[in-house]
Amino acid sequence: MRLADLPTPSLVLDRSRLMRNVARMRARAKELGVTLRPHMKTAKSVDVAKAVHGGATGPITVSTLAEAEHFAKAGFSDMLYAVAIAPAKLDRAAALMRAAPALKILTDDVEAAKAIAERGKTLGVRFNAVVEIETGGARAGVDPTSPELAAIAATLGRAGMLAGVMAHAGHSYGCDGIAEIEEVAEAERAGVVAAAGFLRTKGHAFDLVSVGSTPTALHARHLQGVTEMRPGNFVFFDLFQHGLGMCGAEDIAVGVLASVIGHHRARNHLLLDAGALALSKDTGANRRIESVGYGLIRDPGAASPREDLAVLDVHQEHGILSARRGLDAIDPLPFADWPIGRRVLVMPNHVCMTSAMYTQYHVVDGGDEVVAVWDRVNGW
Amino acid sequence: MRLADLPTPSLVLDRSRLMRNVARMRARAKELGVTLRPHMKTAKSVDVAKAVHGGATGPITVSTLAEAEHFAKAGFSDMLYAVAIAPAKLDRAAALMRAAPALKILTDDVEAAKAIAERGKTLGVRFNAVVEIETGGARAGVDPTSPELAAIAATLGRAGMLAGVMAHAGHSYGCDGIAEIEEVAEAERAGVVAAAGFLRTKGHAFDLVSVGSTPTALHARHLQGVTEMRPGNFVFFDLFQHGLGMCGAEDIAVGVLASVIGHHRARNHLLLDAGALALSKDTGANRRIESVGYGLIRDPGAASPREDLAVLDVHQEHGILSARRGLDAIDPLPFADWPIGRRVLVMPNHVCMTSAMYTQYHVVDGGDEVVAVWDRVNGW
Repeated sequence: MRLADLPTPSLVLDRSRLMRNVARMRARAKELGVTLRPHMKTAKSVDVAKAVHGGATGPITVSTLAEAEHFAKAGFSDMLYAVAIAPAKLDRAAALMRAAPALKILTDDVEAAKAIAERGKTLGVRFNAVVEIETGGARAGVDPTSPELAAIAATLGRAGMLAGVMAHAGHSYGCDGIAEIEEVAEAERAGVVAAAGFLRTKGHAFDLVSVGSTPTALHARHLQGVTEMRPGNFVFFDLFQHGLGMCGAEDIAVGVLASVIGHHRARNHLLLDAGALALSKDTGANRRIESVGYGLIRDPGAASPREDLAVLDVHQEHGILSARRGLDAIDPLPFADWPIGRRVLVMPNHVCMTSAMYTQYHVVDGGDEVVAVWDRVNGW
Repeated sequence: MRLADLPTPSLVLDRSRLMRNVARMRARAKELGVTLRPHMKTAKSVDVAKAVHGGATGPITVSTLAEAEHFAKAGFSDMLYAVAIAPAKLDRAAALMRAAPALKILTDDVEAAKAIAERGKTLGVRFNAVVEIETGGARAGVDPTSPELAAIAATLGRAGMLAGVMAHAGHSYGCDGIAEIEEVAEAERAGVVAAAGFLRTKGHAFDLVSVGSTPTALHARHLQGVTEMRPGNFVFFDLFQHGLGMCGAEDIAVGVLASVIGHHRARNHLLLDAGALALSKDTGANRRIESVGYGLIRDPGAASPREDLAVLDVHQEHGILSARRGLDAIDPLPFADWPIGRRVLVMPNHVCMTSAMYTQYHVVDGGDEVVAVWDRVNGW
C-alpha cells in the first residue's frame, strides 16, 4: 500500500525520521551518563518504545494507567506513571504490578502518601512511590528541602515504598532561547538532586533521581546526581519544538495525510478533509513561527514544509488552507494546481495532541510505501 | 455502579437533560414543519440518535464515513454525509449503500460531481448527491443562483444522481444576540430555497432542501421551502452554546468526571486528572463567559456550575483548577474542602471536541447511579 491508497485523514509516521531522532536522544543520554526512560505520552506505541530501546522492553514513562496496562501486556515492566495518583486508582495499579512489578507511581501529597502506604498494606503490595519535586514549573510537586517532602518521604519510607524523586521542567516549553533552556535544565537537575540529598541525609535509601522534558534533555549542561531522563516529544517533534529551536522542520516525523475536498474561489481558500478533530485545536507553535495556524503542509516526498500555504482555520472536519500571512498575498490561489483529491501532509502544531485522535500510525520509511501499521493506546 | 465508582477521567451523560433538550428540538421541528435530521458529529452515538427519534432509526447527518458505517450497522439508512466528498471515498460510500441505500453524499465542485457521476456509472451505483450552498458561512458551498451550481446540478442530474441542496450557517456561532442569529437563519433558509428554485426552473427534480446548525434551528423565524434541519450540538449543549444564549447552564448534559490529584499551595491552585486530552484545547466559550478557561466545574448532584473555580490551564493530563478571574481573589483556596480524590464534573467548553476523546458515555438519569454505558464511534 502507498500513501495514495490510504483513507484521509490518516496519521503517517516516517520511521527514518523517528530513528534519526531516537539516535540523537540515545547519544544525549549516553553523553550525560543517564538512563533514557522515554515518555510514552506522545507516541503511546509499543513499536516506538521498542525503537527507542533497540528492540528491548526498556524503562518507559507513561501518562495514563491505560498506557501502563497496554505496555505491560507487551512485556514492559519498568514504568513510571508520571501523574500524581488519586487513591481510587491504587487498586488498578496494584493489579498491574502482577505483570509489571517495577511499576512506579507518583505523589506530592502527604495524605495521598498515607493512602498509598495504607492501601498497599491492605492489598499486600509494596508500591514503588516516587515523590514529585517542584523546580520552577509551577504545576505540581513539593519544594526540594521542604517539611512537606520530609513528611511524604517519612510516610512512604516507613512502609518501604519510597522509590525516588522526580521533576518535570515543563516550563522549558516557555523559554526564549537555548541559554534560558540551559538554566531551566540546571534548575530541574539541581532541584531534584537537592531533594535526593535532603532525603538521604534523613536516612532514606533509593536509586531513582529523574528529570524530564525534551528541551531540557537536549540542553542540560550536565546531569550529575541524576539517574535518568524522561523526554517524550523528541521521538516525533512538531512545529512547536521546531519553533523552540529543538529540531529542524525535516526532523518532524509525523503528519496528517489529508485530501483537498473543496475550492472556495470567492474567499480564496482551499478545503482539506482534516479539521479540528484530525489536527487538534492546539495553536502553540504560532508563538514562535509566524502564520502556522493549525499546521504547515508538506508535499509527500518533500523534506520540508511549503512556505506558501497553511491551515489557517479549522471546523470539526474541515481545514481551511490559505496563503500564509506575512507573505505577499497569493490572490487568487493557483486552484488548478490543487485539484480536488490532491494530498498533502499537515505537520502537527503539537504532536501529542494531534496523534491522540488516531488509533494507528501508518508507517513509511522515507518514501511513500506503507511499510507497517503501528497501534496506539488512547483513553484512560 | 455510581459516579463515585467510575475511573477518572470519564465522560458522563445525564439522560434526563438529553431528553429535555431532545424534546425541545423535536417541538421546534414540528413547529417549523420540517424533518429533524440530527447531526451525529456531536454525539456519535446510536443511543443518542435513537433518543432523538423516539427509539427509531430515523434520518441523521454524519460527519465521517466511520460514523456512516457505524450507524448503518445499527440499522440507520437515511444518512447525509455532510462533508464534501473526495473522489477516493466514493468506493467506500458505494459499499455502504448496500446497507444504507438512502445514504447521501455532498459536493460543491463540478470536477467532483463529474467523478461522482462517472464512478457511480462504473460501479453501477446511483449516488444520492446533495449540493452545498454558500449562504454566508464563508467555508464551503457555491452561490445559490450561480453558473457553478447550474453546472454541478447538470452533471449530477444527467446521471440521475441529484438528491437536493443544503446549507450550513456555521457562522451563527459568531453572532451577537438572538436578532443576529435570526438574520443568519433567514439568510441560510433563503439561500438554500433560492438555490432549489433556481435548479427547479432548470428542470431538476429533488426533494431535499436542508439547513443546519443548532442556533439557526432554534431561532429561524420560519423555514418555508425547507424540508429538514440538521442541528447537532443541541443534544448536549456546552458552555459555548450557553454563552451564546442557546441554553441554560442546567441544560448542559455532558461533563467530564475528574478527581483532585494535587494541591499546590504556593501557587494557590488545585490539580485535576483531566487536562488537555480529557477536556480538549477548545477555549471558544471564553469569548462570551468571563474566565471559563477550559471548563467550569459542577459538583455531582448540583444543577449548575460553581462560580468560584474553573479549569484555567491544562497540560496533557493535568487540569489546573483555580479561582476564576474577575471575582474577588480566593487566597488561599479552601484546600481542606478539596481533599485529594474529591470529584467534580467539568462542563465542556465545546462538547463536540471534548467528547471526541472518549469511546463511551457513562449515562446517569439525574442522579449519581450509572444506568447505562453508550458507545461512541470516533475516527474516520
